[in-house]
Amino acid sequence: MTLHADYDPDNIFAKMLRGEVPCVKVFEDDVALAFMDIFPQAEGHTLVIPKDVEARNLLEMPKDKLGPYMKRVQKVTKAVEKALKPDGIVVTQFNGAPAGQTVYHLHFHIIPRREGEPLGRHGGGAPADQETLQGLADRISAYL
Amino acid sequence: MTLHADYDPDNIFAKMLRGEVPCVKVFEDDVALAFMDIFPQAEGHTLVIPKDVEARNLLEMPKDKLGPYMKRVQKVTKAVEKALKPDGIVVTQFNGAPAGQTVYHLHFHIIPRREGEPLGRHGGGAPADQETLQGLADRISAYL
Repeated sequence: MTLHADYDPDNIFAKMLRGEVPCVKVFEDDVALAFMDIFPQAEGHTLVIPKDVEARNLLEMPKDKLGPYMKRVQKVTKAVEKALKPDGIVVTQFNGAPAGQTVYHLHFHIIPRREGEPLGRHGGGAPADQETLQGLADRISAYL
Repeated sequence: MTLHADYDPDNIFAKMLRGEVPCVKVFEDDVALAFMDIFPQAEGHTLVIPKDVEARNLLEMPKDKLGPYMKRVQKVTKAVEKALKPDGIVVTQFNGAPAGQTVYHLHFHIIPRREGEPLGRHGGGAPADQETLQGLADRISAYL
């Protein structure tokens, strides 16, 4: 049952937080880190993760840390909207593998949507080009 | 551009909040109302909406109200997990029609997932049977 298990401190997002693995950063403060999804489901797909917390998913997030974290999710969503001007934005969070979760550190996906453009597969296909991701990150972080 | 428009006080969730339209209630306090989605994408599909706020989507939610609202989203998600013991849970929020939004009052979807069971179409098909929804609501609210 993937909904309940011990937090693995060697998951890739924990490694990014410790600076052991690089990421294309969009935003960082004392509460959260935002970066480009390397397997974007749409152009501008951004992830926001909480810092200083061992929470595999939303169920495990300490109540007192949830509000400050969600303010960052909202802040980054607004920046994605201003920078990329999509027609819509999906904000989504997966708990457990059967829900689509692939990394077990709480994260919200911010996925810009364009009219008539189907959503790509989650975690599927080849990773995005780093230069393209950096260009998107620069445009978004200009609003942060 | 559906991401930006005036709040329509006659949207169906505003009517539910005013008691003008019924809903199968799961939880209510001074901050939020939770009820069963009448077009569930999976058994136990629950919605959580903020009270006393005219926010069409996450972008428009006042910062100071976001934390308390998200605590209720988390609380209901935990209750869904305890009551229905799904294999996973999707927590998702749509901004704008191209993202899948159909009612323009901020809401988070809590969608239980079962191993090997595909997700139903959002807002598609016939409405769920009221008695079935009430049974699910009773099971979930027992944990609230």
